[in-house]
Amino acid sequence: MAHFIKNELTALGAEIELRDLGKQEGTDVDLPPIVLGRYGSDPKKRKILVYGHYDVQPALVEDGWDTEPFKLIQKDGKLIGRGSTDDKGPVMGWINCIQAHQKAGIEFPVNLVICFEGMEEYGSDGLDDLIRTEKDKFFKGVDATCICDNYWLGTSHPVLTYGIRGCSYYAVTVSGPSADLHSGIFGGMVSEPLIDLTHVFSKLVSPKGKILIPGVMDMVVPLTPEEEELYDDIKYSMDDLYAATGSKTNLFDTEKESLMARWRYPTVSFHGVEGAFSAPGAKTVIPAKVSGKFSIRTVPNITPRKLDDCVTEYINKVWEELGSKNKLEIKLLHDGMWWLSSPNHWNFEAAKKATKAVWKVDPDMTREGGSIPVTLTFEEELKKNVLLLPMGRGDDGAHSINEKLDLINYINGIKTLSAYLHYAAVEPMA
Amino acid sequence: MAHFIKNELTALGAEIELRDLGKQEGTDVDLPPIVLGRYGSDPKKRKILVYGHYDVQPALVEDGWDTEPFKLIQKDGKLIGRGSTDDKGPVMGWINCIQAHQKAGIEFPVNLVICFEGMEEYGSDGLDDLIRTEKDKFFKGVDATCICDNYWLGTSHPVLTYGIRGCSYYAVTVSGPSADLHSGIFGGMVSEPLIDLTHVFSKLVSPKGKILIPGVMDMVVPLTPEEEELYDDIKYSMDDLYAATGSKTNLFDTEKESLMARWRYPTVSFHGVEGAFSAPGAKTVIPAKVSGKFSIRTVPNITPRKLDDCVTEYINKVWEELGSKNKLEIKLLHDGMWWLSSPNHWNFEAAKKATKAVWKVDPDMTREGGSIPVTLTFEEELKKNVLLLPMGRGDDGAHSINEKLDLINYINGIKTLSAYLHYAAVEPMA
Ligand SMILES: [Zn+2]
Ligand SMILES: [Zn+2]
Ligand SMILES: [Zn+2]
Ligand SMILES: [Zn+2]
Repeated sequence: MAHFIKNELTALGAEIELRDLGKQEGTDVDLPPIVLGRYGSDPKKRKILVYGHYDVQPALVEDGWDTEPFKLIQKDGKLIGRGSTDDKGPVMGWINCIQAHQKAGIEFPVNLVICFEGMEEYGSDGLDDLIRTEKDKFFKGVDATCICDNYWLGTSHPVLTYGIRGCSYYAVTVSGPSADLHSGIFGGMVSEPLIDLTHVFSKLVSPKGKILIPGVMDMVVPLTPEEEELYDDIKYSMDDLYAATGSKTNLFDTEKESLMARWRYPTVSFHGVEGAFSAPGAKTVIPAKVSGKFSIRTVPNITPRKLDDCVTEYINKVWEELGSKNKLEIKLLHDGMWWLSSPNHWNFEAAKKATKAVWKVDPDMTREGGSIPVTLTFEEELKKNVLLLPMGRGDDGAHSINEKLDLINYINGIKTLSAYLHYAAVEPMA
Repeated sequence: MAHFIKNELTALGAEIELRDLGKQEGTDVDLPPIVLGRYGSDPKKRKILVYGHYDVQPALVEDGWDTEPFKLIQKDGKLIGRGSTDDKGPVMGWINCIQAHQKAGIEFPVNLVICFEGMEEYGSDGLDDLIRTEKDKFFKGVDATCICDNYWLGTSHPVLTYGIRGCSYYAVTVSGPSADLHSGIFGGMVSEPLIDLTHVFSKLVSPKGKILIPGVMDMVVPLTPEEEELYDDIKYSMDDLYAATGSKTNLFDTEKESLMARWRYPTVSFHGVEGAFSAPGAKTVIPAKVSGKFSIRTVPNITPRKLDDCVTEYINKVWEELGSKNKLEIKLLHDGMWWLSSPNHWNFEAAKKATKAVWKVDPDMTREGGSIPVTLTFEEELKKNVLLLPMGRGDDGAHSINEKLDLINYINGIKTLSAYLHYAAVEPMA
């Protein structure tokens, strides 16, 4: 796939380098290289960095696909196949941009800097290092970045995305006996780790989603009237939520509150328990050592470090109050910072004009609840604005069966990317 | 094994029948038959029913055994091998009783009624039905029952066992979304089943073991001074508990309180969660449907029916207070009744005298925390006293690796069983 992209771009006159990432850790398998490229080198033009990934999620017909997942099918106005929307389609979109300009005889408006990786679905191995190493070399002079690798909020209205929540993931381990015990014999004689853990977890968040860890909500930036206004016109309905979750178990009754809960407020989620009985049926064991997993989605201005202090101090206090003789250990398994851009930056203004020109509507300004870590790395290392400009719709089924990209999204997407580059070439930087 | 026992007993002059139990459900495998036998038919003698089982737990050298598990080894005063203590050793003990009487030329004191099954470790398939069917036929006229299939409390003092706790096992299922959700996208927008479940479970029992379900403790018979006295001299130390659990996570500081918690008070244990993330590592899923498993060990006079009312009513009330839009379902997976005998019945008096005669000490009167359901069936169906007269020690490792039976326990055990029959033959029934 890297070679295919290289050949396509080289044929169009781009300078392409395949950056080798070595072997996968502990194996003899070559990692797919990062495609680095330049198209245009006019010192009078702006430099726009575009990112995408050419690797995809695994897929098998047996998973339930209606078609062969690795054969692209066009049907009922949809391009169906693995990677159609995530993220081979958008990667092809950038290549089509160049082709379209050449065929139409229109001068390309910017110097394009290309970064297409092949390890995104597996944690972007090596990409952060490459960005840090190349920030003053290959990436030198970049004026703005555009990432085309997320989705519209719904299915009918184009969006631009200016924020992503971070995530701190914890394991809280309670241990006592040296081995699992029979509850008939020892039940009542010893402190049970799982009972202790349950009590600790019940003190982290209420059933209504209220975070009970002191200090966390204090770090959240207050809602301003201007920010609140951004939510007013977003095309999202509670029915979208009901459809997506297959239930009406919403915590909030309005679209606005629901989207704020997803985008601008932190949340605590429980994922499960490691070490306890988890099979069907009835087993009368007292588990000796259990790890409860929970994560906190973070937003401005929560820092993982301060959050960790709050979490650790609070859980230790709760633990002391329990008065158990078991042992408790708190472990931060991973953390990732939130990202928040200014939706009024010239990079966004260019994308707004492009969207309006192609789709005839103003894009909704959205944020994402989940994480796309490379976004933050680009912004922090290159110190330039990053824009998320999605091509596909919210129901495309990235990572799921029957992944698709609507043909109109593909065609208008290519037009939007092209128009974006034209506006980005001239938009006042002030 | 059934045929070996049949041959041994037949050679000694017993009448033996192998009672066929048919095929294992859904397979073509013959179930091991129940060995029913009679030794002696003198109408002037009492009829004593003895129960044991000739099946054992699975065992592989790879599990960590120091010797071949299915080859009996005698070493350092111990008989080592699978089934040595649970329950092939005791079964052989009864056969040795008859042999010893014959070799010594002593008249056998009672008419022995024998019931040795081969499915105990797998739930005693078919045994309850057989007891009910045969109570007025094969088991007609039995005066008392003796079961040799449990253990001393510790390692140095013989015991008789007069009580067993029951067990009611519950699954509480909370469900919401139609499929697992990504916590980045949906965290904060929907009620999470695992958060709800955690809150419900935290209201069942305190970390100190206090049952929070109203009505349960009210059903427990009050402790009388006479019963309390039974605990005074029991040879059990906190060190035994520390050794058995490999920890010092005891809920109570004294032996007496600890044993009462194990024997005469109900306890709530948490076993685990089905449907949540249970593997190592970090997965950011919101589980759509989770079943929490807990059990309550029951004691006089808690009945499973009344307990179920208390549990259901209370959890439904807690659930209503949570105010979640998820769905909750309470399911009683199984229940088994407690059993409590009179430690002053003539059957026990005979066993006390036998123990004193052989071991030169008075036995401790113990109860068991776990369940041996057949005990209750024998007592309820035959309406005669049941005595648990253990042969092995508390550290024999039944169900574990390197299962053993101390040689002195085997030899003195045979003597105790024999002496018991002699005392049981003459002990006043009043
Ligand atoms: Zn992607
Ligand atoms: Zn993806
Ligand atoms: Zn047994
Ligand atoms: Zn057993």
